[in-house]
Amino acid sequence: MSSTPRTMPGVLELLPLEQVAFQNMVDTVRRVYELHGFVPIETPVLELSEVLLTKTGGETERQVYFAQSTGSLEQGRDPDLAMRFDLTVPLARYVAEHQNDLVFPFRRYQIQRVYRGEAPQRGRFREFYQADIDIIGRDTLPVSADAECPAVIHDVFKELAIGAFTVKVNNRRLVQGLLTDLGVIGSDHAAVLRELDKLEKRGSEHVREALGELGVTDQAVSRLLDFVGYASKGVDDAIEHLRALPTPNELMERGRSELLTVFEALQSLGVGGEAVVLDCSIARGLDYYTGTVFETILDDHPGIGSICSGGRYDDLAGMYTKTPLPGVGISIGLTRLFWQLREIGLIESGGSTTQVFITLFTEADRLPAAAMATTLRNAGVSTLISDAPRKLGKQLKYADRSGIRFAIIAGTDERARGVVNVKDLVDQSQIEVADADLASFFQSRGSR
Amino acid sequence: MSSTPRTMPGVLELLPLEQVAFQNMVDTVRRVYELHGFVPIETPVLELSEVLLTKTGGETERQVYFAQSTGSLEQGRDPDLAMRFDLTVPLARYVAEHQNDLVFPFRRYQIQRVYRGEAPQRGRFREFYQADIDIIGRDTLPVSADAECPAVIHDVFKELAIGAFTVKVNNRRLVQGLLTDLGVIGSDHAAVLRELDKLEKRGSEHVREALGELGVTDQAVSRLLDFVGYASKGVDDAIEHLRALPTPNELMERGRSELLTVFEALQSLGVGGEAVVLDCSIARGLDYYTGTVFETILDDHPGIGSICSGGRYDDLAGMYTKTPLPGVGISIGLTRLFWQLREIGLIESGGSTTQVFITLFTEADRLPAAAMATTLRNAGVSTLISDAPRKLGKQLKYADRSGIRFAIIAGTDERARGVVNVKDLVDQSQIEVADADLASFFQSRGSR
Repeated sequence: MSSTPRTMPGVLELLPLEQVAFQNMVDTVRRVYELHGFVPIETPVLELSEVLLTKTGGETERQVYFAQSTGSLEQGRDPDLAMRFDLTVPLARYVAEHQNDLVFPFRRYQIQRVYRGEAPQRGRFREFYQADIDIIGRDTLPVSADAECPAVIHDVFKELAIGAFTVKVNNRRLVQGLLTDLGVIGSDHAAVLRELDKLEKRGSEHVREALGELGVTDQAVSRLLDFVGYASKGVDDAIEHLRALPTPNELMERGRSELLTVFEALQSLGVGGEAVVLDCSIARGLDYYTGTVFETILDDHPGIGSICSGGRYDDLAGMYTKTPLPGVGISIGLTRLFWQLREIGLIESGGSTTQVFITLFTEADRLPAAAMATTLRNAGVSTLISDAPRKLGKQLKYADRSGIRFAIIAGTDERARGVVNVKDLVDQSQIEVADADLASFFQSRGSR
Repeated sequence: MSSTPRTMPGVLELLPLEQVAFQNMVDTVRRVYELHGFVPIETPVLELSEVLLTKTGGETERQVYFAQSTGSLEQGRDPDLAMRFDLTVPLARYVAEHQNDLVFPFRRYQIQRVYRGEAPQRGRFREFYQADIDIIGRDTLPVSADAECPAVIHDVFKELAIGAFTVKVNNRRLVQGLLTDLGVIGSDHAAVLRELDKLEKRGSEHVREALGELGVTDQAVSRLLDFVGYASKGVDDAIEHLRALPTPNELMERGRSELLTVFEALQSLGVGGEAVVLDCSIARGLDYYTGTVFETILDDHPGIGSICSGGRYDDLAGMYTKTPLPGVGISIGLTRLFWQLREIGLIESGGSTTQVFITLFTEADRLPAAAMATTLRNAGVSTLISDAPRKLGKQLKYADRSGIRFAIIAGTDERARGVVNVKDLVDQSQIEVADADLASFFQSRGSR
């Protein structure tokens, strides 16, 4: 009847003050998503397996968790439920199922956990948060919509204040057009793009060799590497580069023109300066993406790779509906990002959601303490009363270890004078505040 | 390769504007929990089955969903993972696992989904939100902590503004003491309490009969029904009743004294008036609870039963640790509550998280529209620009159907004068606002 309390490998379970820091991050992401006119949806973790698993079965589908109830298990049946492994397939199912009740373009954000049966490995998670936005058109969606993703993401990372970052934008048609021009046949494009994706990680020698094996000539490889080696210094620079870019065929011209639309829209949104760039090396190996693609890196920590990726796709939900649903979206892997930021010391944790702690000298203090707490809570100040009249030092230590910033200390004498002592547990300063000013005193000061 | 998009039975999937209404409800609950000094934690949905399923295997454990990865399934193994069916067992595991890193009394709130393989039935959900608070002591926890649950819950339901409600409080020791006094032996107490729990649903005749079958004498049944028939009019009335209550044995006296502590603390917190009562019929069938117990009903809709229940327990995590962890907690079944409120028409849905929609007459309007959107967003006003310069009527219809309250209409003429027209899509009024006043105009007005 006893069991060792532990979580399964591959989950990031947080202590309360870390959870507050994580929650602050989620709240910031959500606030920026909402400021940009995205509305929330949530989908169930459990989906019918026959509905969820309709694709050809790539890497991700092989990592699916299947689920079944006790009854189903006892009857020896195969599981008919599966846990979502991303938020894109559930979005496709959602939009197809509810299309008559939605307004298009449909702009949703979704911040929920997803599940993957990954091999346990440092920094790889089996249960983790994704924070996605997507804009879905019915039949068509203007290319200008693609500009919204880098604009939102720019604001998200600015607000998160985790250092300098770069949102890299490209368009798959550009490099596919070039490949066509270089004589690489269409059916080889995906394989070539997958190799190009490894450029940063494996270096140009490796890529040169791999492309050679795919039958790409040396000369073509050189032009290709030259082409994908370009990155702009920012939005204005990208526009200049794109305006001058020669486009030998229609595919390339379409890629160029779409990118120009995106960067001009970013310019009009006043977004980016140097934080949003055209980077011709970004290809996003997934065949899913058809036009604009995005990646985001932290400038001082390029080693952690892209912290936010996405792109344009032609049809969200072909497996569920005949209605063409073109869209564009981007996803932040929040759990992994939080973990990485904590690893490199960029997460400040230590502050509680509780701002004020009221100490007790005697049981008789409960009545005035309760009245004070009610006044503060009604003014929006989160307040906790000590559980019991212990030694003052013990109570202050409890408040401090709990991450609470202020402690109220008030004996009979202070109460008679209509004041309390407020101790700031961060800098140890103490100040006398009149009862009537207490709420505004805390309102004008933050938590830890 | 095509599949009908649908969710599994027993989940409540919401359309975007319903999701906004649900999210508002969650935000309110969270805000009140935080105001009262509870800190957030989250635990993984997936737990190791051997850790999660340590109890004797009641009804709830029989409804567990088991999970396994594709690899594990292919190897024909039994699932070693299970999905949480409540937030209490994961809390027990969490507190036992992290006890050296927590501060006691540990006050946590947790708002997450749980999973139960229920038979599909109207109003029963297989995946649903719970919103729990618990206060956990190490070794001991003062009885005064029990008063916090009804105090918080009172504020939650006041803020949710879903009509009059009553938080019912009782103490299991009181009725157990009475049973002892009536000669019912201890081993029969649980069965008797289970029958008493059915009083409201099945009526006194049914309970009288069932208790007779359990060997309780007619006279004892009458005294019992008389006793549990009492409900106070509010906090003051409860205190008066408890002060006068005769207690023939120690168990009853302890129950009486604990309840008195709870109601006196509620009085000092200024909570309740008539919204918190002593109701001697509340027993909470679960053996888990040992002292104070809580239930909450909507006064105008008693038929939907308790919307928020909980109580005091002696030891949270006996299966994981030898450290005694007494606690008190309460849980709101948010999904079920939302569903019920929607059924009885108490949920207002229709407002988007987006407050402002900027219309476009021509592509050239994008630049000034983008500048305006950036100004508004920086001022905290959620703003969406029309995806394309369509007919004005179409754009306004999109905004209206999206639940957005205000539309900005600005042609070349208005722009030259430094003004825009703002249309309120709810009352169809239109007003001219100077560019410089636009942000404060929206800040002082709400969304829909």
